[in-house]
Amino acid sequence: MAAPLFRRMALLGVGLIGGSMSHAARRGGLVGEIVGHAKSERTRARALELGLCAKMYDNPADAARDADLVVLATPVGAYAALAAAIAPVLKPGTIVTDVGSVKAAVVADVLPHMPPGVDFVPAHPVAGTEHSGPDAGFAELFDNRWTILTPPEGTRPEATEKLATFWRALGARVDIMTPPHHDLVLAVTSHLPHLIAYNIVGTANHLEAVTESEVIKYAAGGFRDFTRIAASDPVMWRDIFLTNGGAVLEMLGRFQEDLSVLTRAIRFKDGETLEKFFTHTRAIRRGVIDAGQADPETAKKK
Amino acid sequence: MAAPLFRRMALLGVGLIGGSMSHAARRGGLVGEIVGHAKSERTRARALELGLCAKMYDNPADAARDADLVVLATPVGAYAALAAAIAPVLKPGTIVTDVGSVKAAVVADVLPHMPPGVDFVPAHPVAGTEHSGPDAGFAELFDNRWTILTPPEGTRPEATEKLATFWRALGARVDIMTPPHHDLVLAVTSHLPHLIAYNIVGTANHLEAVTESEVIKYAAGGFRDFTRIAASDPVMWRDIFLTNGGAVLEMLGRFQEDLSVLTRAIRFKDGETLEKFFTHTRAIRRGVIDAGQADPETAKKK
Repeated sequence: MAAPLFRRMALLGVGLIGGSMSHAARRGGLVGEIVGHAKSERTRARALELGLCAKMYDNPADAARDADLVVLATPVGAYAALAAAIAPVLKPGTIVTDVGSVKAAVVADVLPHMPPGVDFVPAHPVAGTEHSGPDAGFAELFDNRWTILTPPEGTRPEATEKLATFWRALGARVDIMTPPHHDLVLAVTSHLPHLIAYNIVGTANHLEAVTESEVIKYAAGGFRDFTRIAASDPVMWRDIFLTNGGAVLEMLGRFQEDLSVLTRAIRFKDGETLEKFFTHTRAIRRGVIDAGQADPETAKKK
Repeated sequence: MAAPLFRRMALLGVGLIGGSMSHAARRGGLVGEIVGHAKSERTRARALELGLCAKMYDNPADAARDADLVVLATPVGAYAALAAAIAPVLKPGTIVTDVGSVKAAVVADVLPHMPPGVDFVPAHPVAGTEHSGPDAGFAELFDNRWTILTPPEGTRPEATEKLATFWRALGARVDIMTPPHHDLVLAVTSHLPHLIAYNIVGTANHLEAVTESEVIKYAAGGFRDFTRIAASDPVMWRDIFLTNGGAVLEMLGRFQEDLSVLTRAIRFKDGETLEKFFTHTRAIRRGVIDAGQADPETAKKK
């Protein structure tokens, strides 16, 4: 087996993404040692039981000390405090990265804390399930999914390249873009869909004429697909909307304009507009399947 | 094996639902003979090849002649013409049913054509996939899903009971409600989710700053769940919005009110409102899983 890419990886956060990185890194023999940090005693104990980390620390600096790869894997709202806490122990040559779903805000929070010689290379693995916590992780989560790296200006190209190699070895395909472009792309492919899913599940729950039990019984009519994404980690999503509000509000404006057109077509019984619109969206689904980004279970049916 | 429930079932339409009814009826030995009607020569040939029907007719009256169960299984916009076409050949004691996703409009379209002694018992199997056409059907589609019967006033109770027995034997659970209540329940559990999914997929496709290829590459971030429902049959969905517009517009109004609250919370960075909202929706997902109405693949992960 080849030498590990990193001697010691510190996972600051061991939820769905951090846990899956541990599984995939061990599957590939990519790191010498994995240590971790979690705030709660219970999570630390569980991460050890599951073998996600060889050691777990309550102090993030103790986990980051002597690591050559440090991964911020908590909700993004905690990054600034973590970066400040670990800064004193980071040695030149260390790569610090993250797995957050927003990037411009993360760069603003973390980069100022980085000491000279340490590269911060933000990363966003575009993969997930609606489950969270240390038990949710699995080695295949990143296989054939995209991970986007958004190195800020001044990052050493070798650091970006090394992290890209690591992500490819974890199973992912790698893309590189600027933090603001990332935030716009994800606003439409992820943040807006989640917001809408949360909203529609809320709407269904507030009705008087239809009971909650009816909503749940007949969820197979379409509603269940929304409940799946609306079950994602609430704190993570709170932080995403707090830190990428601008791009999300822009996409919401577009969404509202388009919805007005459909609403009007329904009100005036304009079947032609409806059918044309619905036919076009089928082609996009086809594109998602062809790109290998559909659910494995659904894609194989086609 | 027990005697079949029906001697001869005529499927007027052999798409996802009609085809699946044939598979499930043959699996259970529930009918003596299955015949069908489809407008297109190609669909008729395919239905015979697949063994969905023993005979296929281009004239719906020829299929309905001598049947004791006639199933309207085309998009609902075609029901009125079909009912008029088959009325002359229907014999007393025959049960006519349908599988449409709206009910009040269907009763208005079909019931006036029914001759004396023939019962029209509308049915809606709340089950589906995004695939359509005769190849899309499979025997397990209705297993453990709900089928809603909405008998209009004056329907003989024996007819309703016999159709309920048939649907249970096809694998489904059966509920009975009035047509207007059905339409309200489905507006929120199915019609609104589909409309929103179509809309969000359209929004993603109209952007200038984000390319279609980017939208497709990063669909795993949440967007893909919307593309799945937005790939459903366009003509079927056009008809649903043309015939259940009132209930859908009412639900859209609620949806918009709720979305205003979330939009405002994002604009004013009100993390508490966001987190509370997102936490609550998780409990509803839990309810869907506990009720056995989640995707089998997703549900088993929990």
